Amino acid sequence: MTFYRQVLSIIDYPDLLTNPNASSIYPLDVLSLAKKFIDNIPGGSGAYSESKGVPFLRQMVAKGIEARDGGHPCDPDSLWMTDGASPAVHYLMKMLLRSEKDAILTPIPQYPLYSATIKLYGGTLLPYYLSEEKGWATSATHLKEQVQKGRAQGLHIRALVVINPGNPTGQVLTRENQEELLQFCADEGLILIADEVYQTNIYAQDKKFYSFKKVVREASGTAANVAVVSLNSISKGFFGECGRRGGYMEVVNFPDDVKQQMYKLASINLCPNVNGQVCCALTLNPPQPGDPSYQLFTEEKDAILASLKRRALLVVDTFNSLDGVTCNPVEGALYAFPRLTFPQKAIDEAHARGKEPDFEYCMELLDRTGIVTVPGSGFWQEEGTYHLRTTILPPEEDMQKVSKLFSIFHKEYMGKF
Amino acid sequence: MTFYRQVLSIIDYPDLLTNPNASSIYPLDVLSLAKKFIDNIPGGSGAYSESKGVPFLRQMVAKGIEARDGGHPCDPDSLWMTDGASPAVHYLMKMLLRSEKDAILTPIPQYPLYSATIKLYGGTLLPYYLSEEKGWATSATHLKEQVQKGRAQGLHIRALVVINPGNPTGQVLTRENQEELLQFCADEGLILIADEVYQTNIYAQDKKFYSFKKVVREASGTAANVAVVSLNSISKGFFGECGRRGGYMEVVNFPDDVKQQMYKLASINLCPNVNGQVCCALTLNPPQPGDPSYQLFTEEKDAILASLKRRALLVVDTFNSLDGVTCNPVEGALYAFPRLTFPQKAIDEAHARGKEPDFEYCMELLDRTGIVTVPGSGFWQEEGTYHLRTTILPPEEDMQKVSKLFSIFHKEYMGKF
Repeated sequence: MTFYRQVLSIIDYPDLLTNPNASSIYPLDVLSLAKKFIDNIPGGSGAYSESKGVPFLRQMVAKGIEARDGGHPCDPDSLWMTDGASPAVHYLMKMLLRSEKDAILTPIPQYPLYSATIKLYGGTLLPYYLSEEKGWATSATHLKEQVQKGRAQGLHIRALVVINPGNPTGQVLTRENQEELLQFCADEGLILIADEVYQTNIYAQDKKFYSFKKVVREASGTAANVAVVSLNSISKGFFGECGRRGGYMEVVNFPDDVKQQMYKLASINLCPNVNGQVCCALTLNPPQPGDPSYQLFTEEKDAILASLKRRALLVVDTFNSLDGVTCNPVEGALYAFPRLTFPQKAIDEAHARGKEPDFEYCMELLDRTGIVTVPGSGFWQEEGTYHLRTTILPPEEDMQKVSKLFSIFHKEYMGKF
Repeated sequence: MTFYRQVLSIIDYPDLLTNPNASSIYPLDVLSLAKKFIDNIPGGSGAYSESKGVPFLRQMVAKGIEARDGGHPCDPDSLWMTDGASPAVHYLMKMLLRSEKDAILTPIPQYPLYSATIKLYGGTLLPYYLSEEKGWATSATHLKEQVQKGRAQGLHIRALVVINPGNPTGQVLTRENQEELLQFCADEGLILIADEVYQTNIYAQDKKFYSFKKVVREASGTAANVAVVSLNSISKGFFGECGRRGGYMEVVNFPDDVKQQMYKLASINLCPNVNGQVCCALTLNPPQPGDPSYQLFTEEKDAILASLKRRALLVVDTFNSLDGVTCNPVEGALYAFPRLTFPQKAIDEAHARGKEPDFEYCMELLDRTGIVTVPGSGFWQEEGTYHLRTTILPPEEDMQKVSKLFSIFHKEYMGKF
């Protein structure tokens, strides 16, 4: 996105502001916004910031969150700016997991950051299974069963992780389902960790993103008091600024003494990178109608999101056109997680080699076509099912070719059995 | 430093390269270097990099390390780029500390990152005391005594942390002392963690920085096989790019399977921020004589280092001019750690209030003058001694004023007792 990069370049090299050619290089709103950043970030981008992030930038992020949620107030002191969403998950797991008896309810399939950090901090991943038959839906009834099973094993269940839109599964939760999950957390005394990094990646026409912050603020009864953490990142959306490592976590209904401990934890590493913080503040405060940058920004944004939507459809259609493959719609996020049904012979031969059939499939796909996918086991999956994960990110002009190559490979591979 | 910022601004906004005014804004070497970065960083600064850092940038860092160490080869695969030096310390402590029986020999006074991460990962800090009377020297004899004491308590000692130049103590180790510490690690079977983030901040005329990498490569006998980790950061030196969060760790004499585990650990968080990686590669590859940027770069660098040196002298002189204060020379780094000798009455009154006298001194200094210092207890100190830590970073034009204010405060404060 040109707008972000223009602002960032000036913050890196403030002399550009006073360059005689500045107004021929940059739109006026870029120049004035960059100046505002430079004036309000103590020490500019060169100094350490507060461990939770530059106060001015947290105020901007808070404003952006309020606009997203229809005005529910956001307190900048409840925000931690982070180097991408990952450090926030580290903080949470470190704080929640005291021993292997402490468990985190985690969706399966899941993003491996969760299994890795739960293991790293010595806790237990208590799985709950998304229902592939129902479009990767989350069922509160199933969750309650898993909680009972976990408690019967002596586990102390601390939190529920919800990834919405889903990674790697691409589903978008309905508002009703979110309310149900919130009530479940209230009933069971759990913290709700909402991984909402794909919140601007929604492609299904009948789906809309609601933040858990909004849902909890509009809840009544015990659900209104659930402690919620919302994670966001600049690595996704239509901007994909992965390399900057920017993001934040917002905590809601957290007691002050717990926030103090989180602050202390964040302060060990001094601060998240300021360039990523600036980019995060920018993504939450896009140019407005009338601003000189508005038109180009909107064109770029719309083009990227429209292209992602076309690619999401193409990927799913390709998979569903193949024998032995079924794929739920990619309603949001950036991935498809199709199910592969292997002939028993393929399964037996793989197992005889000490391998899983989806692993062998993905490796041979890579060797023969150069297409990189990840076997479902990397994300965990229900026993006896096999999947692969692919992204919808290859350039659109390559997608038809990739789709064709994939189809030819698949028929040949399955034909062997 | 203008040179770094110029290159970074183009990488953020590559359109600047082809702007018709580019050559009036930027020196030619900046333009060609920025192009080289853009061409060699897959996906530019917008994409995730390899978890250890962009290969091209690690090659540049390796080249810089080789130049620093007089040609000893540096393998880019032994480098992990990091968001500042802190994440490297997290990786190391996570890998070294299996239980509270695992101990890390840590200098006292120390940089609080060490006490915090050792606690965080459940290990034990086994202190060794720098000798204030001998200019904060490290004694191998004392280290051996501490090891014996530790082992008598059932501790399994895993590593020796050496901070050189010292933080917060400002001493620079002699080459002989470094060789002695290396041999100590060889004899005791310890990893040497060399925190060398202040390596370009040397002010004492008779002192020179030698990296532990160079010392281990030039060692003979068992010392040549000691596993060494060298930490570096872009937050220090004459550039002070703290807000970018860039740095690296180099591991020497590490077995491949251990390196594989470190790689896995780093990959949980995807990658360090690419902007910080670029800046790190730049700091290790300064402009050379004949390059268009060389003159300005050298002027800026020399001015900053000369000013830091003057400030180091002024701070130490101020402290030593005061009754009840003694301060070792600031040979390197960015801090002074003067010792405060309080009248017994001040100590007794503070203790009666449940406080330490250096804490009360620093708080009252802040209240009365606005000068921020940190009581010695934040860095640990030998029992019965009191210190404060201050930096030599305030702008030089303010230093005389700060020095005067401090002296007046000190006389009044001590006069009360």
